[in-house]
Amino acid sequence: MTSFPAERGRPRDERSSAAIIKATAELVVESGYAAMSIGAVAARASVGKDTIYRRWSGKPELVYEAVFTTTDTADLPDTGTLQGDLTALVQSLIDEFSAPQAAAALPGLLADFAATPDLRATIRSRFLKPAKERLTEVFDRAQQRGEAGADLPVDLVLDTLAGAVFFHLGIIGERPAPDLARRIAAMIARGIEAR
Amino acid sequence: MTSFPAERGRPRDERSSAAIIKATAELVVESGYAAMSIGAVAARASVGKDTIYRRWSGKPELVYEAVFTTTDTADLPDTGTLQGDLTALVQSLIDEFSAPQAAAALPGLLADFAATPDLRATIRSRFLKPAKERLTEVFDRAQQRGEAGADLPVDLVLDTLAGAVFFHLGIIGERPAPDLARRIAAMIARGIEAR
Repeated sequence: MTSFPAERGRPRDERSSAAIIKATAELVVESGYAAMSIGAVAARASVGKDTIYRRWSGKPELVYEAVFTTTDTADLPDTGTLQGDLTALVQSLIDEFSAPQAAAALPGLLADFAATPDLRATIRSRFLKPAKERLTEVFDRAQQRGEAGADLPVDLVLDTLAGAVFFHLGIIGERPAPDLARRIAAMIARGIEAR
Repeated sequence: MTSFPAERGRPRDERSSAAIIKATAELVVESGYAAMSIGAVAARASVGKDTIYRRWSGKPELVYEAVFTTTDTADLPDTGTLQGDLTALVQSLIDEFSAPQAAAALPGLLADFAATPDLRATIRSRFLKPAKERLTEVFDRAQQRGEAGADLPVDLVLDTLAGAVFFHLGIIGERPAPDLARRIAAMIARGIEAR
């Protein structure tokens, strides 16, 4: 997903920045999001806490960048059907949310974002932006094929797909069954297709 | 939703217990889940922290009980259609998740539950239990009407409905539009009905 915050300038010291990101990614898996601290990151990265706070406002922003900047956002394949395209999209959400660093970070990270108005506003504009672009492309193809009308509710479908995957894997902690993406996608595709 | 933990005995002092629950419900709205502490609850309820810890293992268990024990769990009406019944069920989730105490508590509370194996195991067995019972009844009616087959995936549909409502309201912070329940329910009903 997209870098956060994109507004900050070029790091003064790219080596210490890389060490901070690496330490953060390791510690969130080892300690869990709630228990990890900026102090522990600073100690592992051999930098002062001030160095971290010059670049990130706090733990949520730092963990967000450490977990979600390396995500592959390659275009989804055109499978030829709405259900196939949605299956690929849901599978990409499952892969992203169940990677060890994301799984360790997401419930606490999203709770911190939700509790902070400035950060909450970025969930749709940044965190969900790549997935929304993909879903919009999937809907465009479906409309061109005549599988769906022009009035599909992109944000509502996106919240439903992301919410289903996040709740099933991140909150309840289910292991993703091999056919999970196909089952969710089949239900939603049938639910929104023209007929 | 159901009381937690149900195993504990009758409170030694029901008055102090009621004061603790009331203080917890107030503080979670005033301070937010992350910022509130057992110490602050104890001070407002005029009890010692030991009194709280004798009855609840920690903040998650206490907040869960304070927020979700007074929820109305009356049976859903039989509207005569799968879509109508699901709309009523989704509306009950929206009402429950958007009540001020629940909205203030849920993201952080569920993150704490998700991060603690013993508590995580109770999300499906306790937190979601009343909604699952309602959904099972809705599916039984749909099958009797011939609207749906016998193999509906109850847990997957429940995670999708709860996840959509939780993500849309609790994480992203959208205000629930008047037709939100109907739109989610229409999509899911079409997605699972026999045809």
